[in-house]
Amino acid sequence: MEIDYVLAALPLIPSLVCILYIDNQQIFTMIVYSLLVSLVGFIMTNALVPVFSEYTLKRGLSGKDLGKKGSPLESVDVPEALGIVTGIVFLVCTILSQMLFATNESQLLIFNSALFSICFMIFLGFLDDSLDLKWRYKLILPSVASMPLLLSYSGHTAMFITKSLRGLLMSNGRLTIIGYIINLFATVDIEANGAIVELGYLFLVFMGLQAVFCTNAINIYAGINGLECGQAFIIAASLLFFKLYEISMLHNETENERFAILMVIPFIGTSLGLLRHNWYPAKVFVGDTFCYFSGMTFAVIGIHSHFSRTLLMLFIPQIINFIYSVPQLFKLLPCPRHRLPAIDAYTRMMTYSSFPCKAHEYKLFKVRVTDEQCPNCTFICAVLRVTGPLHEKSLCIVLLIIQCLFSVLAFYIRYYLLEN
Amino acid sequence: MEIDYVLAALPLIPSLVCILYIDNQQIFTMIVYSLLVSLVGFIMTNALVPVFSEYTLKRGLSGKDLGKKGSPLESVDVPEALGIVTGIVFLVCTILSQMLFATNESQLLIFNSALFSICFMIFLGFLDDSLDLKWRYKLILPSVASMPLLLSYSGHTAMFITKSLRGLLMSNGRLTIIGYIINLFATVDIEANGAIVELGYLFLVFMGLQAVFCTNAINIYAGINGLECGQAFIIAASLLFFKLYEISMLHNETENERFAILMVIPFIGTSLGLLRHNWYPAKVFVGDTFCYFSGMTFAVIGIHSHFSRTLLMLFIPQIINFIYSVPQLFKLLPCPRHRLPAIDAYTRMMTYSSFPCKAHEYKLFKVRVTDEQCPNCTFICAVLRVTGPLHEKSLCIVLLIIQCLFSVLAFYIRYYLLEN
Repeated sequence: MEIDYVLAALPLIPSLVCILYIDNQQIFTMIVYSLLVSLVGFIMTNALVPVFSEYTLKRGLSGKDLGKKGSPLESVDVPEALGIVTGIVFLVCTILSQMLFATNESQLLIFNSALFSICFMIFLGFLDDSLDLKWRYKLILPSVASMPLLLSYSGHTAMFITKSLRGLLMSNGRLTIIGYIINLFATVDIEANGAIVELGYLFLVFMGLQAVFCTNAINIYAGINGLECGQAFIIAASLLFFKLYEISMLHNETENERFAILMVIPFIGTSLGLLRHNWYPAKVFVGDTFCYFSGMTFAVIGIHSHFSRTLLMLFIPQIINFIYSVPQLFKLLPCPRHRLPAIDAYTRMMTYSSFPCKAHEYKLFKVRVTDEQCPNCTFICAVLRVTGPLHEKSLCIVLLIIQCLFSVLAFYIRYYLLEN
Repeated sequence: MEIDYVLAALPLIPSLVCILYIDNQQIFTMIVYSLLVSLVGFIMTNALVPVFSEYTLKRGLSGKDLGKKGSPLESVDVPEALGIVTGIVFLVCTILSQMLFATNESQLLIFNSALFSICFMIFLGFLDDSLDLKWRYKLILPSVASMPLLLSYSGHTAMFITKSLRGLLMSNGRLTIIGYIINLFATVDIEANGAIVELGYLFLVFMGLQAVFCTNAINIYAGINGLECGQAFIIAASLLFFKLYEISMLHNETENERFAILMVIPFIGTSLGLLRHNWYPAKVFVGDTFCYFSGMTFAVIGIHSHFSRTLLMLFIPQIINFIYSVPQLFKLLPCPRHRLPAIDAYTRMMTYSSFPCKAHEYKLFKVRVTDEQCPNCTFICAVLRVTGPLHEKSLCIVLLIIQCLFSVLAFYIRYYLLEN
């Protein structure tokens, strides 16, 4: 177990390096306090998860670990929905941060609307875990929960178009066909030669959709011990690095950066507190509660800190998984109840799972067909087809390393491709 | 059933009369819109309660109705915690109101911090209903949930002392002993001759305690079909009348009045939607969720609308019930698991329940001892001892009429005794 701690610390190293280069004393102090608050958050989450897992077990809020099939752990009831502990402790930590660092009314407003949205989402996630809601509610609920956030959004509603893409909108001072179509819904700034597209209310609709996407994307990229919590941790660590890099190297020290940092540090602390118990072999499950909570937190940070596109780039594995899953999610291909990897009861190795399909029926979607069986369309199964059978813990680590690599790619795109 | 609707409308008549006297066109329009929004809230709550009660039943979130002992309904599982529907619909309604009427940043801040606190409380209430938390959490949770509210509180922190009480603090231009003790913790304004006591942070502590009190006071004055929801409705109707009276008759048209009205009208609409299903014979139970939600909503309105003392006066039956319950709650007297009235299986009439106690042991607390049985120390049992056996529905109506009478008393104190 001890080596895993070292592994967990790795994604935080770039951020720690950046902290050393911060020369703004005020922000440095803020970060130190925030680290202390989230250390307390880590300790509290770590201590409260076992307490609350007894409660959830007693009330039957538990499930079997499908990845333990054929092992002595197969019949053990694993307590569910422990994301509530992370969520509540996170809310308390950020209320404290707000008390210490949000000094004027507009900062308080941003904090309160952000926390209201996150709190609403945690509540709805827990509702889903305890009542097992239908899909339509799962899509409506994040939209409802993001309303307070969008209402109090006071930033710009225009989109900056990078040089390389401007040609799509305008050429020779005139709108192209694509530019003309976009201009029907938004306003392409012709004088700026397509560099700015004013989206107006459409911007808020996009933000709302992003909240729906973030919450659900994490929720369907799951099923392996430690993966939900682990991916959220990697994304959060990347976000933290992104903001600290902006502050320390680019001297971009606006309110947006401060807000993002004050939200993401306690998120990392409380998530690590849960990850300890969710890591292989999982003693608790995080539940939809955690997926909704983390998705909404990222959406909130992205919206209020004005970097929605960079945020989306940190979700590349989730986006691939989502797009790849579409044929099964929308029933164009048969979708079994669970699409988890298959497990070999003797070797304890995981391989990709498959569903029965007729080769001639699904020509459009099939990737490889063996004995009329198609592999399930999930990112996890795709990885397993490349790597071959893996132990559950190794599989999780591989997936988290892939998440890290995509974060590196995202920053490469952000700072090299799009800047030039 | 139809006559009950007429009964339910009665407490709203004074408010309706006040609306006719409002001459501020802007506020009148606001009230009309708010009434429309809460009509939608009523319809949605009414429609969603049966949907969600199937969910809660399926997950075993249900209980037996102890007031139906000996009747065919005794063994029926009644779905629990339907306060979640009221809570969620209320949040959506107030988000809509906020969208329509909160125009500047400081109004948005008040709305968002208020809704964050209420949302947090609904979540914690539902957590309590589904996990059955211990008492210590029940006391900590409302304090935590009221933190965002208190942090964004920007109003005065001084208390105005009415003429009749000033003598207790000062006499002949000097502090009395009581005044001196109070001056240790707060600042008695000596130049104003004790009319103002500046409480500073202590004010916020009081506000936090009020939130804890309101949530728990409703929770322990419960157990009869329709009582939790009914009392909340009467208190809300009284609050609405109070604010409309201030606006229409006293031309007190500050932000505070607008905020209170925009919160309390959707509360009434959504609570009535739940009351329909909770009224005798109850098809659903409201759960701790509703008690916490309503208590917090009242506390929030009282704090942001600056009338904490008038609010407390609307809680007189709850306060009597609480003080009367103290010997049992703190185990100075034996406290049975349930302190509900006893029910006669044949006549279906309710009488006060009792617990075994030895006359000589409890001389201090005993009110009446029959065959070494003491009546339970609840307001409901006290009423039953005065009225004699009552049918459950009649008992609820009697208790709600008492609640109304105490509201009348509260306004008499507020407008006649304290003003002069």
